[in-house]
Amino acid sequence: MRRTVFNEDHEAFRETIRDFIAKEVVPVYEQWEQAGHAPRDFYYKLGELGIFGIEVPEEYGGAGQGGFKYQAVIAEELMRAGVSFGGSGVHTGLCLPYLMEYATEEQKKRWLPGFVSGEIMTAIAMTEPGTGSDLAGMTTSARLSDDGTHWILNGAKTFITGGVLADLVLVVCRTSPATPEDRRRGLSILCVDTKSPGYTVGRKLEKIGLRSSDTAELSFTDVRVPVEDMLGEEGKAFSYLTHNLVQERLGIAVGATAAARAAVDFAVAYVKDRKVFGKAVADFQNTKFVLAECAAEVEACQAFTDRALDLFEEGHLTVADAAAAKLFTTETAGRVIDKCLQLHGGYGYILEYPIARLYTDNRVFRIYGGTSEVMKTVIAKSLGL
Amino acid sequence: MRRTVFNEDHEAFRETIRDFIAKEVVPVYEQWEQAGHAPRDFYYKLGELGIFGIEVPEEYGGAGQGGFKYQAVIAEELMRAGVSFGGSGVHTGLCLPYLMEYATEEQKKRWLPGFVSGEIMTAIAMTEPGTGSDLAGMTTSARLSDDGTHWILNGAKTFITGGVLADLVLVVCRTSPATPEDRRRGLSILCVDTKSPGYTVGRKLEKIGLRSSDTAELSFTDVRVPVEDMLGEEGKAFSYLTHNLVQERLGIAVGATAAARAAVDFAVAYVKDRKVFGKAVADFQNTKFVLAECAAEVEACQAFTDRALDLFEEGHLTVADAAAAKLFTTETAGRVIDKCLQLHGGYGYILEYPIARLYTDNRVFRIYGGTSEVMKTVIAKSLGL
Amino acid sequence: MRRTVFNEDHEAFRETIRDFIAKEVVPVYEQWEQAGHAPRDFYYKLGELGIFGIEVPEEYGGAGQGGFKYQAVIAEELMRAGVSFGGSGVHTGLCLPYLMEYATEEQKKRWLPGFVSGEIMTAIAMTEPGTGSDLAGMTTSARLSDDGTHWILNGAKTFITGGVLADLVLVVCRTSPATPEDRRRGLSILCVDTKSPGYTVGRKLEKIGLRSSDTAELSFTDVRVPVEDMLGEEGKAFSYLTHNLVQERLGIAVGATAAARAAVDFAVAYVKDRKVFGKAVADFQNTKFVLAECAAEVEACQAFTDRALDLFEEGHLTVADAAAAKLFTTETAGRVIDKCLQLHGGYGYILEYPIARLYTDNRVFRIYGGTSEVMKTVIAKSLGL
Amino acid sequence: MRRTVFNEDHEAFRETIRDFIAKEVVPVYEQWEQAGHAPRDFYYKLGELGIFGIEVPEEYGGAGQGGFKYQAVIAEELMRAGVSFGGSGVHTGLCLPYLMEYATEEQKKRWLPGFVSGEIMTAIAMTEPGTGSDLAGMTTSARLSDDGTHWILNGAKTFITGGVLADLVLVVCRTSPATPEDRRRGLSILCVDTKSPGYTVGRKLEKIGLRSSDTAELSFTDVRVPVEDMLGEEGKAFSYLTHNLVQERLGIAVGATAAARAAVDFAVAYVKDRKVFGKAVADFQNTKFVLAECAAEVEACQAFTDRALDLFEEGHLTVADAAAAKLFTTETAGRVIDKCLQLHGGYGYILEYPIARLYTDNRVFRIYGGTSEVMKTVIAKSLGL
Repeated sequence: MRRTVFNEDHEAFRETIRDFIAKEVVPVYEQWEQAGHAPRDFYYKLGELGIFGIEVPEEYGGAGQGGFKYQAVIAEELMRAGVSFGGSGVHTGLCLPYLMEYATEEQKKRWLPGFVSGEIMTAIAMTEPGTGSDLAGMTTSARLSDDGTHWILNGAKTFITGGVLADLVLVVCRTSPATPEDRRRGLSILCVDTKSPGYTVGRKLEKIGLRSSDTAELSFTDVRVPVEDMLGEEGKAFSYLTHNLVQERLGIAVGATAAARAAVDFAVAYVKDRKVFGKAVADFQNTKFVLAECAAEVEACQAFTDRALDLFEEGHLTVADAAAAKLFTTETAGRVIDKCLQLHGGYGYILEYPIARLYTDNRVFRIYGGTSEVMKTVIAKSLGL
Repeated sequence: MRRTVFNEDHEAFRETIRDFIAKEVVPVYEQWEQAGHAPRDFYYKLGELGIFGIEVPEEYGGAGQGGFKYQAVIAEELMRAGVSFGGSGVHTGLCLPYLMEYATEEQKKRWLPGFVSGEIMTAIAMTEPGTGSDLAGMTTSARLSDDGTHWILNGAKTFITGGVLADLVLVVCRTSPATPEDRRRGLSILCVDTKSPGYTVGRKLEKIGLRSSDTAELSFTDVRVPVEDMLGEEGKAFSYLTHNLVQERLGIAVGATAAARAAVDFAVAYVKDRKVFGKAVADFQNTKFVLAECAAEVEACQAFTDRALDLFEEGHLTVADAAAAKLFTTETAGRVIDKCLQLHGGYGYILEYPIARLYTDNRVFRIYGGTSEVMKTVIAKSLGL
Repeated sequence: MRRTVFNEDHEAFRETIRDFIAKEVVPVYEQWEQAGHAPRDFYYKLGELGIFGIEVPEEYGGAGQGGFKYQAVIAEELMRAGVSFGGSGVHTGLCLPYLMEYATEEQKKRWLPGFVSGEIMTAIAMTEPGTGSDLAGMTTSARLSDDGTHWILNGAKTFITGGVLADLVLVVCRTSPATPEDRRRGLSILCVDTKSPGYTVGRKLEKIGLRSSDTAELSFTDVRVPVEDMLGEEGKAFSYLTHNLVQERLGIAVGATAAARAAVDFAVAYVKDRKVFGKAVADFQNTKFVLAECAAEVEACQAFTDRALDLFEEGHLTVADAAAAKLFTTETAGRVIDKCLQLHGGYGYILEYPIARLYTDNRVFRIYGGTSEVMKTVIAKSLGL
Repeated sequence: MRRTVFNEDHEAFRETIRDFIAKEVVPVYEQWEQAGHAPRDFYYKLGELGIFGIEVPEEYGGAGQGGFKYQAVIAEELMRAGVSFGGSGVHTGLCLPYLMEYATEEQKKRWLPGFVSGEIMTAIAMTEPGTGSDLAGMTTSARLSDDGTHWILNGAKTFITGGVLADLVLVVCRTSPATPEDRRRGLSILCVDTKSPGYTVGRKLEKIGLRSSDTAELSFTDVRVPVEDMLGEEGKAFSYLTHNLVQERLGIAVGATAAARAAVDFAVAYVKDRKVFGKAVADFQNTKFVLAECAAEVEACQAFTDRALDLFEEGHLTVADAAAAKLFTTETAGRVIDKCLQLHGGYGYILEYPIARLYTDNRVFRIYGGTSEVMKTVIAKSLGL
């Protein structure tokens, strides 16, 4: 179905990204997966290409183009090729909005140029072993040094995407105790230099998929963080954390839609090529029907996310809209990818086939950025339930 | 999610329709269901209101407003109230496009004013006992009278919506034999006056739902149809039959989406009101989650059909797009309505509750206008399968 | 898959029932559906055939054969023919166990011979408008007459299957007030003669299906019930009500399984017979695959219910087992019947086709005897959740 | 639900196996997964424990106990612990039946004692790159040496489970050309010593799951196989290949059922233990309902496979029965495991949690031993379609 969300600039950008992926990612992607992350150098290339600076104002080294739709183009092209930019989605998708919104002018000047060039790769550390989505329950904490120049950080975090390679980690921690009436007070964000003494990268977690994206445990033992490296105001982190949820979830919806579309494309190509019992797999009515059903569901996802992209740019996408888009597209993508894998037969189970990577990578879509269950809670509230 | 497909004129029209339905339909709807059809008089009211003439040029008594979106508004308002305009959907939705496209100037002058006023209610007769969707296999046939002034029509049709009350029936019949090479040749459309001798309305078929819409078997025994009552050219009916499919299927998609939305609305209202074990049904997490999931699916349907409505108006909605929209929305509506019924408990099984009518009425959505299986075949072709 | 739950006696009984249904029910079933119930006379025929007395001891006019598997045979044969014995399922399935367990010797002598012969048709009245499954909230109440010889019954009940034709109704009512600590106390069962002054049958409820089974509202205005017509002990009704749930739910599971099997059988026959586009519907791979999937699910239902039947006879079927069997088989039957209907195309929507009746009748399976949601609650408890 | 398929001997055996798994597999399983296979030594331990010899007659070193139910016990216990015996399932599950049925007395004496002790680990090589399930299309071929003492084998195979560690591989190959009328003729089985010159193990395939089971490509370049190492008669392999399908598919059904049960057990334990927002995950109604639904489906799988196990022992399990059992249980297990993973939130995506391994391992259940699509074809035939 004809789309109208992208203009000529977006499409030109798409061409560039597509070429870059074909040349710089696809040929080496299996090595990244084996290694468990992209090589550090690759992020400089992304910086050079301008990927990290699209939304960053020119004064800090970016292109100042703005517009979430460029991120959507990148997500679509990555899924289309069945690859990723390693853990760097967090760098632009999650960390940048915090820096843009809450960093002081001085901090922006200090961090953004490196952010744009790839020299300062960022990650964000929220989840702790044992707390999950219940951020108010976190125990990682920081106290002021006696001279008041540093925060002394102690604690542990887990599920940190990009955690192995990061240079600067936004650590959410408790800087004053919660009260029984308000468990959410007292949380702050410290930007921690990963070369600081006492900062340790723990185990890299083995995941079902997303194998080219490093996911780590971090621990902090008396890590000294200069007070000028606090992001935003002390004690206000909890309110910041929900700030970016609409964009984050829309981004996942875009990715899930692109993944589902890619799955159909891979399967269509496979079944046309592949012969069993003397005829192409594509010639079986079941193949046609399964793919037709999947294609219709992909169009529904596309219409939904495209509508959401337009509303987001116009400032009209609500929290519940974004939750509905994430819920619907990730659940649908899960089913579509599963069916497309099945059409590959045994080959669908072998990781060198992109459908297998889509299958393993996408299982997390229904979990991260808020689980499907959290999305339902959000939507139900908007229904007055 | 904010919608943009309708303008102020549409919304003003919506108000009128909503009032009309609340006053003229809802209070008497149960009687229609008992009777098996709307009273004949009601169609004059619809004519007076201008429902039948929206898209008919002013010279034939219509409003000449054009625009399928007005039909969409009507469909949405009917579903919202859990009612229908009897079998008259076929009058404007199926028959009018044929008359507008293929009737001669003389025929338009003769038929359209009555069409608009409700004096000439129309129906279309395609399906025959034993042929189903395989139109090329039909055996109802007409031969020219010896003096060449009339077609002599013989045969039988079934599943004719509006067949009991119709004044003029567009009968697809064979006017010359098929050939083994081309089973589709030789079909024509005759507009048959239902007061003609030899025209008989057979059994009214008892259906799972749509009980206010008369569905009949028709039989023709030497019915004499003036040659000037042939619609379009002799032998070309088969190509005509596919002409209107995009609009017809889009219309069903709009209806299915509205039905699904109505189901969620009915269920939300019900669960807030209804108490079990001392608390509102709405307070159970399962209730919230089921309705949240349904609401997200409804938004997907809405984004899909709204996109399709815009593309249709711009002339860019393809046959495969319409098929995908119908497939997705009717399958989704089926699931959504079923879940919303379940939340009503035993009351959901009692026909006086609109959710029960939505359930029984909507089962046919996946069948008429082309079954889901036919939609999949159409979509698969567009994928090159 | 080969079954082993039935012995030769069961199979002989099956033959008898099958013949009876073919001769006495199938030919007139459409009239019953139109009328909204079976003719009163028919119940005498069932009595004569011995249907009502299978489990009733010989001293009260029954066969004393015992064994729930005979009921299973009846359920299977009814579904197989796509018909029912009207509302009489409640007579043997729900009311009899209460009478057998809680009636005094005097009551048994008074009621059971008529029960067996069909002269005393029974029904049970629990649900009230506005209480649903929350039996503790009921407000129908009875107080002792001044002379202590009668209970004076006042209130209203709804969803009473068999309520139009019943001769004796087991009415659950409040005979002393609930306390805040124990909402369940104070409920008793009165056996009310339907010819009593003040007993009124209200509206017959129009349902989605089960049209040959009368479902009514009842109201009681100072109905005088002799004290000797109380069933069981005063105030103990609540505990009685759960007594029969295992058997009731197992019975529904058996029916759902048989319905699903019948749906597959109807569809297999239909698709072999029916031609579209020049070939049998059965020749399409989609048809084969859909029916194969359904058939596998039916076998799963069958294995589950057969296992449950054996365990029930041995006294080892737990409440959670029965809930799981009901949940699984009714949810599965819902899906299977829907798919089999779809394979019928437009004919599936016409009530004269048994698949359409299965569709409409079976929607209530997931609701009555405890909704799927209630079943999940029961099962979850057994998991320690 | 109470089970009756196992006797005391089976249960005693279960204890042994359970202990063995807990001691010898669980503590080292992550290393196996990293290595991509179990250590060679482990197979000697299995031999010692008697795992390989259960069904092998005593004269060849086995226990001669017979009975597929012992295999079922092993499958259940492995799934319960979320581990596997590496690729050795093929050794007993697939290769042994061929050896028992088609090996000559001389071959049995030569191979079975080593088979039982773990010294001769076997694998079977059917699939070729590009042929998939279409065995008749294979091109690996063998011709007799000029002196008639050896077959000279050339070609390549893929997806060979156990292929890295195998000592003896049953290679299906073409020993005479197919004819257009009979593509299935001319296939034979050669038992190839993996130390033979020209035998090469190619790439180990990276799979979505089953990471402790080695899956390899094999290639044969003029491999000389003594004529006395042909299994069964020349040219009859095709008929042999279908011989074992009932048992193989029943075995997968047993495994899928056990996997689904294990998933529910893991999830129940997790949600009781895990707290979010101040209460246990188990306390949310959604958690209870999801697990209740899963538990009911597991009971259906269990009833189905238990029934099938009994029928198999009695010789009454048909090809269609086994196909239905595999189809139903593997499709159900897929859904159940997915839902149970979701309840684990982010932890479900981390491979150290057994639910993650169940998820990745089990995706192949719907593919190997014949895909779900092949199962449907088999079942449809049994319905006369």
